[in-house]
Amino acid sequence: MARPRKPIDSAMGWSTSDAITVRGKDLPSELLGHVNFGDMAFLEVMGRLPDDHESAVFNSLLVTLVEHGMTPSAIAARLTYLGAPESIQGAVAAGILGVGSVFVGTTEGAARTLTAHITRESDPTEVPEIAAKVVSEARRSGKPIAGIGHPVHKPVDPRVPRLFAIAEEHGLRGNYVALMEAIGVEASNQYERVLPVNATGAIGALLCELGFDIRVARGLGAMARAVGLVGHIAEEMDKPMALELWYRVEDEVVERHVGTES
Amino acid sequence: MARPRKPIDSAMGWSTSDAITVRGKDLPSELLGHVNFGDMAFLEVMGRLPDDHESAVFNSLLVTLVEHGMTPSAIAARLTYLGAPESIQGAVAAGILGVGSVFVGTTEGAARTLTAHITRESDPTEVPEIAAKVVSEARRSGKPIAGIGHPVHKPVDPRVPRLFAIAEEHGLRGNYVALMEAIGVEASNQYERVLPVNATGAIGALLCELGFDIRVARGLGAMARAVGLVGHIAEEMDKPMALELWYRVEDEVVERHVGTES
Amino acid sequence: MARPRKPIDSAMGWSTSDAITVRGKDLPSELLGHVNFGDMAFLEVMGRLPDDHESAVFNSLLVTLVEHGMTPSAIAARLTYLGAPESIQGAVAAGILGVGSVFVGTTEGAARTLTAHITRESDPTEVPEIAAKVVSEARRSGKPIAGIGHPVHKPVDPRVPRLFAIAEEHGLRGNYVALMEAIGVEASNQYERVLPVNATGAIGALLCELGFDIRVARGLGAMARAVGLVGHIAEEMDKPMALELWYRVEDEVVERHVGTES
Amino acid sequence: MARPRKPIDSAMGWSTSDAITVRGKDLPSELLGHVNFGDMAFLEVMGRLPDDHESAVFNSLLVTLVEHGMTPSAIAARLTYLGAPESIQGAVAAGILGVGSVFVGTTEGAARTLTAHITRESDPTEVPEIAAKVVSEARRSGKPIAGIGHPVHKPVDPRVPRLFAIAEEHGLRGNYVALMEAIGVEASNQYERVLPVNATGAIGALLCELGFDIRVARGLGAMARAVGLVGHIAEEMDKPMALELWYRVEDEVVERHVGTES
Repeated sequence: MARPRKPIDSAMGWSTSDAITVRGKDLPSELLGHVNFGDMAFLEVMGRLPDDHESAVFNSLLVTLVEHGMTPSAIAARLTYLGAPESIQGAVAAGILGVGSVFVGTTEGAARTLTAHITRESDPTEVPEIAAKVVSEARRSGKPIAGIGHPVHKPVDPRVPRLFAIAEEHGLRGNYVALMEAIGVEASNQYERVLPVNATGAIGALLCELGFDIRVARGLGAMARAVGLVGHIAEEMDKPMALELWYRVEDEVVERHVGTES
Repeated sequence: MARPRKPIDSAMGWSTSDAITVRGKDLPSELLGHVNFGDMAFLEVMGRLPDDHESAVFNSLLVTLVEHGMTPSAIAARLTYLGAPESIQGAVAAGILGVGSVFVGTTEGAARTLTAHITRESDPTEVPEIAAKVVSEARRSGKPIAGIGHPVHKPVDPRVPRLFAIAEEHGLRGNYVALMEAIGVEASNQYERVLPVNATGAIGALLCELGFDIRVARGLGAMARAVGLVGHIAEEMDKPMALELWYRVEDEVVERHVGTES
Repeated sequence: MARPRKPIDSAMGWSTSDAITVRGKDLPSELLGHVNFGDMAFLEVMGRLPDDHESAVFNSLLVTLVEHGMTPSAIAARLTYLGAPESIQGAVAAGILGVGSVFVGTTEGAARTLTAHITRESDPTEVPEIAAKVVSEARRSGKPIAGIGHPVHKPVDPRVPRLFAIAEEHGLRGNYVALMEAIGVEASNQYERVLPVNATGAIGALLCELGFDIRVARGLGAMARAVGLVGHIAEEMDKPMALELWYRVEDEVVERHVGTES
Repeated sequence: MARPRKPIDSAMGWSTSDAITVRGKDLPSELLGHVNFGDMAFLEVMGRLPDDHESAVFNSLLVTLVEHGMTPSAIAARLTYLGAPESIQGAVAAGILGVGSVFVGTTEGAARTLTAHITRESDPTEVPEIAAKVVSEARRSGKPIAGIGHPVHKPVDPRVPRLFAIAEEHGLRGNYVALMEAIGVEASNQYERVLPVNATGAIGALLCELGFDIRVARGLGAMARAVGLVGHIAEEMDKPMALELWYRVEDEVVERHVGTES
């Protein structure tokens, strides 16, 4: 029954007694001291180092994704740490597991919309018409437009103009950013309310500008969130909230069912 | 039964309609475009931004931790992706769960040894004597010395001199690095074989130099590995190995028990 | 900005000083010694205890899902245990993360097909016609039929007749099982090759017979696999394979890139 | 550099075209319809089926571990489901990651204390003296005694007498249970307050009676909790609390730092 064997291969990295190679680079002499953590992430996923412009935009994008305050994911990590303090990796992993379709999926969705309608080489004058079409289609199908609208940040998500300005400064504000912005304008017009491009929309557009495979978008969210989660766990060590949160939930449920007498 | 309520608080970050604050900084104007992904990690964990010297050393340390080729953790992430490609976060989480006591625990162990015997203010001339004591105690107890020795990298782990050179260049080569190096020399002498400081020992020493709480060492390993795991998953998408690996293991077990006829 | 508060409630369970209630039952007097682990799983998910017939079928279904030999999920759990033996929960979790759309998704898919076309009250004589329609539609769309066909078990998946016989014995072989079987027959006819109902198809049908919400199908897979994974980890403790597996993969990659000399 | 190859083997299970073997048993004919889910768990971990007595005690023990109401682990699973509803396995895994040293570790600890001081063959009349020694040592070292005391269940944890009665009924109330009970009595005497044996202590003792390797205790906790977590996720699908919980935490933190005006 044994199936024919195929080779197993990887270009990620390997070691010999005196050398450590990562993605074709000599780690000690070509990477250490030369690249920052964000550049290393770019190298890992893209297989090549970013140039200075790509580095600036990509690092900004990752920095944006790191910390969002008391998210469900951060709370889950803290609750996990409460039960298993011997295993910080478990608390980080629990938090990462919440980085799914609801919170990071829209970055993917926005990038998918953009790449479905435009390329780097498209004629920029077509952008407004495409945006109108995207919004009309969304209205017809009744589906939300990924990357548009924010419950808190109105009329502007303050991250978006900053990210787009950084992209412009580094020559990476192209058709994808233009279409994302045009969709925001068009959506606000057609729906007659403020529907700004949000951070996931901006990041989706920048990932397209940088040439990333959309399928790894959620992975980039996971790696950035891993950084933020370690921050939350470090805070939880010194200023814990998980125990209090647990007690509140448990007490509220118990009181409802058995009263406060018990 | 309800327990007295305590406040829930966090200094990690929060948003209002027009502002996003992370660790006391305004994200759009003070962080985006100003700090790299490694600096952001420093800010998250330490609560303050690194200076340029700390940034250089900390980024190098994280870059070192990102990629180690085909580790058990990377293989586990790829196998998980095979079964649940809809959930990249799950594959990343599975890989992070292997970043435990065996592979990252020695960084903690090395840092613990160093902080137990020396401080930033200790007299550097005492270092050799302390190193001799640490090694003698380890020999007596029969326990390995964390951060010393490597199965592949002999006589030198090529990451270590580079990391220590970067620390020196940035004024962060202090007592902890000195003691780590002295322990390596002393161990090689007492055990009469080559026992170089390895990367986990070097990183443990640098974390002490940077003033990190040892308890978050494993968290830093987890965040850096998250980056590397996304790289492996991106490679797995295009050049998969998990299916072949599964078939090999399954076929080997089946053949042993039922033969190749079945 | 604070949003209006809503109550938090749950009917899962609570404790007072002298009583422990689970899903409305007194745990010590009504559950311990009266129900088995599978019945308890039924109670947790359905909110009521199974009768004897439901218990027999549901326990069989869970038993079927526990162990599948050297799956990617079991291998991932073992590799995770290698790196973090202090955290068995981490190894179990890593294995569960591979129980996703590829391996368990077909149970959901099969159940969804069945409930989309038939109900408990449907006229059984309509079953063959419905089956023909399901298979024709699948052929037209070129999509596989969930729950049909198996790479190894031909011409019959030996679990399927046994599971259906148990269902029959307990009066739970109804329209869903009939339709699943009819789809198998029809598929074999239309595709002119042996396409038996496989275990995921059988389990999908039985979950429908038992009245489970399809959305929890993957959860049942996860709980059963958790049991199997603990078995694998227990074996790994005494008869490890993860280290050898890691070395094989790493050596194969290193040899390909740097040769065997190094 | 390639290391010498070793065989990879496992006795967990394998398939051929017409047979499925699990732990040496033919799954369809010897297990399905013959064993319940708890017996299957016993088979997986012990490598043999339980007899009727062992089955009764082991199933009771697992049933006890399934549901504990609104634990940190259940809350973490619900929060994870909120962010990644496409991945139920991720929510289950996140919940399992909290089953660590704090909540399940005491079962291990209790079992370790018992096996360190007594065997199945020890003279039962020695039990009181051993108990006195265990408690005296604990008092001297200032360490808590695993398996003793409960914050809510006083003067008796209602699960404990029931579990011990089931063990007695099935001839499995031996030296380990006797010592656990004696430690409870002795602790209450020496500390002069009510210190009942709690459920983790009872389960630790029963695992010893059943002959389990202590190292898998946490694994049994994880598998039982997996069942309970699927129950919580099923409830969350219909009666969610995670969103409200998130909003409460976020609002409390935001209000503290920026006031309610924003």
